[in-house]
Amino acid sequence: MHHASDILLTLFLVFIAAQVGAEIAQRLRLPGVVGEIAAGAVIGPSLLGWIQPDQVLPGTPLDVLAEIGVVLLLFSVGLETRLEDLKKVGKTAFLVGVFGVLVPFGMGGVWAHASGFPWGKSLFIAAAFVATSAGITARVLQELGALQRVESKVILGAAVIDDILAMLLLGVVVSLQGGAGFDPLKLLVVLASAVGFIALVGLGGARVMRWNSTWLEKPHSPHSPLAIVLALCLGLAWLSTLLGLAAIIGAFLAGMIASETRQQHTLEKQTQPLLSLLTPFFFVITGSKIDLAQLASGEALAMLAVVTVIAIVSKLAGGWLGALALGRRSAAIVGLGMVPRGEVGVVVASLGLAAGVFSDRIYAIIVAMSLLTAMVTPPVLAWLLKRHPVQETTAAG
Amino acid sequence: MHHASDILLTLFLVFIAAQVGAEIAQRLRLPGVVGEIAAGAVIGPSLLGWIQPDQVLPGTPLDVLAEIGVVLLLFSVGLETRLEDLKKVGKTAFLVGVFGVLVPFGMGGVWAHASGFPWGKSLFIAAAFVATSAGITARVLQELGALQRVESKVILGAAVIDDILAMLLLGVVVSLQGGAGFDPLKLLVVLASAVGFIALVGLGGARVMRWNSTWLEKPHSPHSPLAIVLALCLGLAWLSTLLGLAAIIGAFLAGMIASETRQQHTLEKQTQPLLSLLTPFFFVITGSKIDLAQLASGEALAMLAVVTVIAIVSKLAGGWLGALALGRRSAAIVGLGMVPRGEVGVVVASLGLAAGVFSDRIYAIIVAMSLLTAMVTPPVLAWLLKRHPVQETTAAG
Repeated sequence: MHHASDILLTLFLVFIAAQVGAEIAQRLRLPGVVGEIAAGAVIGPSLLGWIQPDQVLPGTPLDVLAEIGVVLLLFSVGLETRLEDLKKVGKTAFLVGVFGVLVPFGMGGVWAHASGFPWGKSLFIAAAFVATSAGITARVLQELGALQRVESKVILGAAVIDDILAMLLLGVVVSLQGGAGFDPLKLLVVLASAVGFIALVGLGGARVMRWNSTWLEKPHSPHSPLAIVLALCLGLAWLSTLLGLAAIIGAFLAGMIASETRQQHTLEKQTQPLLSLLTPFFFVITGSKIDLAQLASGEALAMLAVVTVIAIVSKLAGGWLGALALGRRSAAIVGLGMVPRGEVGVVVASLGLAAGVFSDRIYAIIVAMSLLTAMVTPPVLAWLLKRHPVQETTAAG
Repeated sequence: MHHASDILLTLFLVFIAAQVGAEIAQRLRLPGVVGEIAAGAVIGPSLLGWIQPDQVLPGTPLDVLAEIGVVLLLFSVGLETRLEDLKKVGKTAFLVGVFGVLVPFGMGGVWAHASGFPWGKSLFIAAAFVATSAGITARVLQELGALQRVESKVILGAAVIDDILAMLLLGVVVSLQGGAGFDPLKLLVVLASAVGFIALVGLGGARVMRWNSTWLEKPHSPHSPLAIVLALCLGLAWLSTLLGLAAIIGAFLAGMIASETRQQHTLEKQTQPLLSLLTPFFFVITGSKIDLAQLASGEALAMLAVVTVIAIVSKLAGGWLGALALGRRSAAIVGLGMVPRGEVGVVVASLGLAAGVFSDRIYAIIVAMSLLTAMVTPPVLAWLLKRHPVQETTAAG
C-alpha cells in the first residue's frame, strides 16, 4: 500500500500545484499555463523539492503522464483546426503565418549561430522562437470579447498556418539531430517524409472523414466516437515517432482529421476534461525542469533579456509585415497577437533537453522566454484593442 | 525518441485492445467491461505477450495509469451516489443491500475456510464475492428501458448500500492483512477508522457541499469545477491509503461529496471522457494478469464452477430475501439484478494479488468468476423483465 500512497501523493501535489499556479496567474490576468509552469519551478528540485529529478526521467510514470498530456493538448489544438479555415482567412492570414514563422526562425537562428552554436543546434534553438500559442491567443481574444474583429480572424487563421509550419520545422530540426550535422540530402528526406506523412494523413484523412464519418458511431460502446479518435490519436502519435517526427505531430494530425467529422463539436467538448486532468502534468513537470540556479547569473539574465526581445520583435515584425494590407494599426494588433509563445516553444525546449541538444541553461532561458512573451502580450493587446475599436466585421459579441 | 515510441506503442495497443474487446462483448450483448478484461488476457503474457509482466509491476507507468483509471471509475460511481437516494429507496433497498452483502460474504467465507484457507485469508476471498457492479446493473437496466420499474429503483438503491458496505468490508479485510491474523482489537480500530473517515468525509463533506457549492465556481480557471473535484479525488484517494484503506474508497467518497453540488450533472458528463481514456488501462491490465495456464486443469475449472455457483446463488438469495416485501417475482428480479460482479470484485482480487494474499490461481478464479456473473446476468434479466412487465411506477421510458 505504501508505494501506491507515494505515487498518489505525488500526483496530488503536482495537480494541486498546477491549479494554484493557474489560479494565481489568472487573477494576475496572465494565461493559466504561465502559472502551471511557474508552479512546477516552485515545487521542483530548485526550490521546494517535492518533485525529484529521478521522478521525471524518461519512462517514469510522471514522464509518461506528461507525454500523454501534451499529446492530448496538441490533439485538441488539431481539433480546432479545419482545413477549410485555412482557405477562408485567405491570403493575409497565410502571409502572417509565413512571415511570422520565417522572421523569428531566421533571427533566432542567426542570433544562436552568432552566439557560437553550430548550425544544427542553432536551427533547433531557432525552432523554439517560432510557434505562436494558438491557445493563449484565442483565450485572450475571447476574454476581451474581440473574436469577431477582422484582426482576430487573421490571427486565428495565421495561428493555424503557424502551427503547421512550426510542426514541420520541429520535425525537420529534431531529425537533423543525429550527430550527422547539416546534411542537405537528409534534410530533403526528412522534409519529404514529414510533408508526405502530413499530406497523406492530414489531407487524405480529412477527406475520408468529411466524406463519411457515420462509421464513428457504428460501435456499440457508449464512448464510441471519442474512444475511436483517441485510438487514432495514440496510433498516429506512435507512427510519427516511428518516422522520427515528434509524437505531437501525429496527435495534431489526428485532431485535424477528427475536426472534419460531424462529431467535431462533441469531441471538442469531451476533450476538455482530458486536458484538465492531464496537461497540468506536462506543464508542471516542464516547469520543474527549469534549473533556477542557471538563471541566477547576470550573464544568464542578460541572455534571457536578449532572447526575449528577439522573440517579441521578430514575431511582431513578421506578423506586421504579413498583415500590412489591413493598415498599419491593425497590422500591429495582428503582429502583437502572434507574440505569445507557449506550449510549442516549451515542447521544443523539452525535446531539445531530452535529446541532449540544449544545455540546462539554454533550456531554462527558452522556457523563461516562452513565459515572458505569454506574460507581456495580454495586457498590451487588451490596451491596443480598446484604443482601436474600429475594424469590426460584425458587432463584437 | 525510441523510448517514447515504445511507450506510445504499448499505450496504443492496450487502448485499441480494450476497444476491440468491448465492441465484441457488446455485440454479444455482454457488458463492455467483460470484453476489456478478456482483451487483456489475450494480449497479456498468457497468449500474445504484447504486455510483459515487468511492464505492469507496481510503480510502472502502466500500473499508475491503471490506478488512476480505477480511482476515476470509483469517483464516477460516487458521483452517481447521493445520500438522499439512500433515504428515498427506503427499507427494501436497505434490506436488499445488507442481505445481498451478508449472504455472499458469509457463504464465500465459509466456503473459503472449508477449502482450507485460514480465516484472515478467507474473509479477504469472501470480500471478492460481495460487491455488485452498480455500473453493469445500471447499464443493463438502461439498455432494456426498465429504469422506471420499482425493481430497478430498489436495485439501484441497494447497489449504493452494497457499494458502501463492500468498501467498508474491503477496508477491513485489507487492513487485517498484516500477518497478525484475526485480532479483534485491530478489527475494531480498523472498523472505527474506516467508519470515522467515511462518516467524517462523506457526511460532513456532503453537508458542506449541499450547504454551499458556489465556491467551486470562484476560480477563474475554465476547468474550475472539474479540476477542484479531481484534486479532491486525488487528495482523498491518497488520504485513504495513508489510513490503510484502499485508494478507491477515498475516490468514491470524493465522488459522493461532489454529487451533492449543483454542478453534479456537469461533473458527471465531464467525468465520462476521463473514464473512456483511463479505465481501459485498469481492465486490460487486470485481464493481462490472469494466468490462463492456472485455469487449464480440471481441478481449477471445478473450483471456478463452485465459486461461480456460490457467487450467483448467494447474491440471488440475499437480494431475494431483502426484497420479499415486493412479492416473490419482483424479489427474484431484484436478486438477479444484484448478481453481476465487476469492478469491485476485480479490484479486491487485484489488491489480494498485490498484497500476496491470493495465489495466481485464486486470482484467476475470482476474476473469471466476476466475468462469468457479469456474462450470465444480462440475458436472464432481460428475459425475466419481459415476462413480468407488471410492476411499473410510471410508463417505461
